[in-house]
Amino acid sequence: MRSVDLNSDMGEGFGPWTIGDGVDAEIMPLISSANIATGFHAGDPSIMSSTVKMAREQGVSIGAHPGFHDLKGFGRRHINATADELINDIIYQIGALREIAKMHGLTLQHVKPHGALYMHAARDEEIAKLLVTQLHAMAPELLIYTMHGSKVHQQALEVGQPVVCEFYADRDYDLTGSIILTRKVGPLDPDHVAQKVLKACQEGKVKTVEGKEIDIQFDSICIHSDTPGALGLIQSTKSLLESNGISILAPQ
Amino acid sequence: MRSVDLNSDMGEGFGPWTIGDGVDAEIMPLISSANIATGFHAGDPSIMSSTVKMAREQGVSIGAHPGFHDLKGFGRRHINATADELINDIIYQIGALREIAKMHGLTLQHVKPHGALYMHAARDEEIAKLLVTQLHAMAPELLIYTMHGSKVHQQALEVGQPVVCEFYADRDYDLTGSIILTRKVGPLDPDHVAQKVLKACQEGKVKTVEGKEIDIQFDSICIHSDTPGALGLIQSTKSLLESNGISILAPQ
Amino acid sequence: MRSVDLNSDMGEGFGPWTIGDGVDAEIMPLISSANIATGFHAGDPSIMSSTVKMAREQGVSIGAHPGFHDLKGFGRRHINATADELINDIIYQIGALREIAKMHGLTLQHVKPHGALYMHAARDEEIAKLLVTQLHAMAPELLIYTMHGSKVHQQALEVGQPVVCEFYADRDYDLTGSIILTRKVGPLDPDHVAQKVLKACQEGKVKTVEGKEIDIQFDSICIHSDTPGALGLIQSTKSLLESNGISILAPQ
Amino acid sequence: MRSVDLNSDMGEGFGPWTIGDGVDAEIMPLISSANIATGFHAGDPSIMSSTVKMAREQGVSIGAHPGFHDLKGFGRRHINATADELINDIIYQIGALREIAKMHGLTLQHVKPHGALYMHAARDEEIAKLLVTQLHAMAPELLIYTMHGSKVHQQALEVGQPVVCEFYADRDYDLTGSIILTRKVGPLDPDHVAQKVLKACQEGKVKTVEGKEIDIQFDSICIHSDTPGALGLIQSTKSLLESNGISILAPQ
Repeated sequence: MRSVDLNSDMGEGFGPWTIGDGVDAEIMPLISSANIATGFHAGDPSIMSSTVKMAREQGVSIGAHPGFHDLKGFGRRHINATADELINDIIYQIGALREIAKMHGLTLQHVKPHGALYMHAARDEEIAKLLVTQLHAMAPELLIYTMHGSKVHQQALEVGQPVVCEFYADRDYDLTGSIILTRKVGPLDPDHVAQKVLKACQEGKVKTVEGKEIDIQFDSICIHSDTPGALGLIQSTKSLLESNGISILAPQ
Repeated sequence: MRSVDLNSDMGEGFGPWTIGDGVDAEIMPLISSANIATGFHAGDPSIMSSTVKMAREQGVSIGAHPGFHDLKGFGRRHINATADELINDIIYQIGALREIAKMHGLTLQHVKPHGALYMHAARDEEIAKLLVTQLHAMAPELLIYTMHGSKVHQQALEVGQPVVCEFYADRDYDLTGSIILTRKVGPLDPDHVAQKVLKACQEGKVKTVEGKEIDIQFDSICIHSDTPGALGLIQSTKSLLESNGISILAPQ
Repeated sequence: MRSVDLNSDMGEGFGPWTIGDGVDAEIMPLISSANIATGFHAGDPSIMSSTVKMAREQGVSIGAHPGFHDLKGFGRRHINATADELINDIIYQIGALREIAKMHGLTLQHVKPHGALYMHAARDEEIAKLLVTQLHAMAPELLIYTMHGSKVHQQALEVGQPVVCEFYADRDYDLTGSIILTRKVGPLDPDHVAQKVLKACQEGKVKTVEGKEIDIQFDSICIHSDTPGALGLIQSTKSLLESNGISILAPQ
Repeated sequence: MRSVDLNSDMGEGFGPWTIGDGVDAEIMPLISSANIATGFHAGDPSIMSSTVKMAREQGVSIGAHPGFHDLKGFGRRHINATADELINDIIYQIGALREIAKMHGLTLQHVKPHGALYMHAARDEEIAKLLVTQLHAMAPELLIYTMHGSKVHQQALEVGQPVVCEFYADRDYDLTGSIILTRKVGPLDPDHVAQKVLKACQEGKVKTVEGKEIDIQFDSICIHSDTPGALGLIQSTKSLLESNGISILAPQ
């Protein structure tokens, strides 16, 4: 692996509020792909606009980061909505960001569902199929971010929608290759995270919470900007990767 | 005048709720342009999707109907937001509808701000200029609906953005040519409304609340779908116009 | 049975929107207990105020009808919130209605969770226990509405909180005694519903969707105001009960 | 002046978000009265609950801090609502907090409208009168916080509702005795703020932006917790006051 994508969630404030350490401006120059919140779990039109502008200035590729319609729960709580409702919600959010991106002269590179919606699409065949099919009909060039082996991954391969598989640097894995979902992540050690990513890049392996190594396939590293100390995690990871000859580059 | 556009607000429900008499399906076949609510004052992604579908089936042109972000107030209460905030809100809403329209194979014909935002843009030079300039840069083909002589109208003429001037069939006019804003409109007589519109089309005149006739210039008739008895008003107006040789046709 | 409570959801509009047939004013005089929406799934402070006023004028007892925080889904979609979050949401909503009731000189008779929250509390022991315990500590006089045999019912008996068991006139039952949850109920036959209620009152039995009769215990009949034709259902039910010597009366 | 109240806005996060420097836990022990956000401009039921709990632990008096229903604008944007709508909104919010306070064994000391609603009530006679009259009828013991000479102040004196006049330590005054409203306040010098407060306490005077001193009357000092560096401002103010023999004490 000579290069790898590094993606992070950006613009996840709302109105007067910023998320995590409020360091989007420091993180943006370090990543290659920004997942921009689109107003349903976080983000509002003005934050979206300033975040897109920041991405353009730093040459970072952008994608829509649609979530469940639940600001209070930050899109981390599953809502028992129908697949049709969710597709409409997602298309709405993609369009909103696409237009704001256009205002700044940018086009969308990708879409990555957020939080509980990401996990729902990864596991539920109905929503995965409907989502991928709809995207393929409307925007066959839009990369979709997901986990290797997920329902979204399977559907994307089947339909021919370009897919980017992710490695979650700031989440734990279990033996099934799934990440351990949590509503609150504690502080992590930057060196530990960087080493975990380097090993994943070089060997394609990650140690699970059960203590055993499993194979992992991915095209992009995800570090959440609302993980406490996110900036340090991203800095140490980028630095260790680059000093090992792996550059940070958006998917080609 | 051989033909005139007839526009109405469509898709102004939210979640389980419908607005007015809940007769969008009956009104849609009678109009030529539908202003589709885009989620901020009314409308949600699923309602937007079914409304766009209905418009396509009836051959009705569609436009975005962005409003202040205020469901409880239905976009009828002015919010003291900055022009920048409002432009971002509007662009967000246009994009959301544009993507949902694309899902159904339609493109947007126009944009028409809703309620208090419509009046704000009509009167406030800063927001009018910013809105028209931004639309012209991003979507020079998008018609903008407004009142003749408004700030939006002036800016559109100056910049070269195509503009459609409206006649409000279900609102009263005063001597200044302004409509009388109200949060609640009572039932109106269908014949009276139809005659008022016919007179406006044939003579270019409307009687004001003060009792005097004034000149009125317009390309489109607006009848609000949430005016009580809206369906009857639209039926009688369309019928009287057609029997007088004026057909209902979207702006060409 | 000489009398029975008849409860219905009231004030489930939001902003400019009314729910169902918009006949709260016609239904209110016919019922004995009103479940008043408290702003999270429906209802807003002004609607709450006018609904409480209407209940006072008709001598109807009132209760809080708290729901999941989800206007778009009308509280009918389960949200994966923690029990603590939900208790806080419920206490917030009860207090909001209590203060508005006080403004009109009324006190609260009961609390009845709405939609998916009602079902969640009926089935989930953690939330049921936390809810009943909290209510008992804060408002030991507040009746809690639920289904016979539910977790809420069990907890209320255990703790000594007064409980009112409901019979759902406009929902189908299955063999387990559970009602069949649905997001959309079609029109029902008023005579059929009235007969079903009369049989339940006189014989304590209801026919399930499987065709077999089961025993049913209840103190209150619920007819949802957003069921199409709700007014007719309530009129026919009240009329048939009264002509059979059963009067409509709030729990004593 | 031997003692003075020191109030600050608390619990102004929402969902995953915290406001300002996120230092409620550090500020709470230093103040005597906490204005707790009630969900419309900030705050959610769980944040309200944990904030009330924190106030109880620190022996801080609590009050409701109702705002315009506008999370995105943080209640800082005026919304053109009717006085009746606003009263209902305020009563709803007071009740919500009162019930959550009761859950923690506390009662409400005061009510203080937030942001644009505070200024609206200070200037508009209709809303001021309706608010004070309603509070007096429902909760004659509830202190109302406002500025000396405001419409709320005048109405409270007239009706006999207890009123607490505020001195804004982190806002500038003009010659009329009004504070200069702003949506964003920059960092302030802690010593300068402390000296300004001490002078106000000892001499009853404040220097205006025009450079002239005016008289100022107050019972409570307000320092906003979302002013950058708020903790430092509060620490230096409290420290300087105490070393000059003025203790921080809730209104008696």
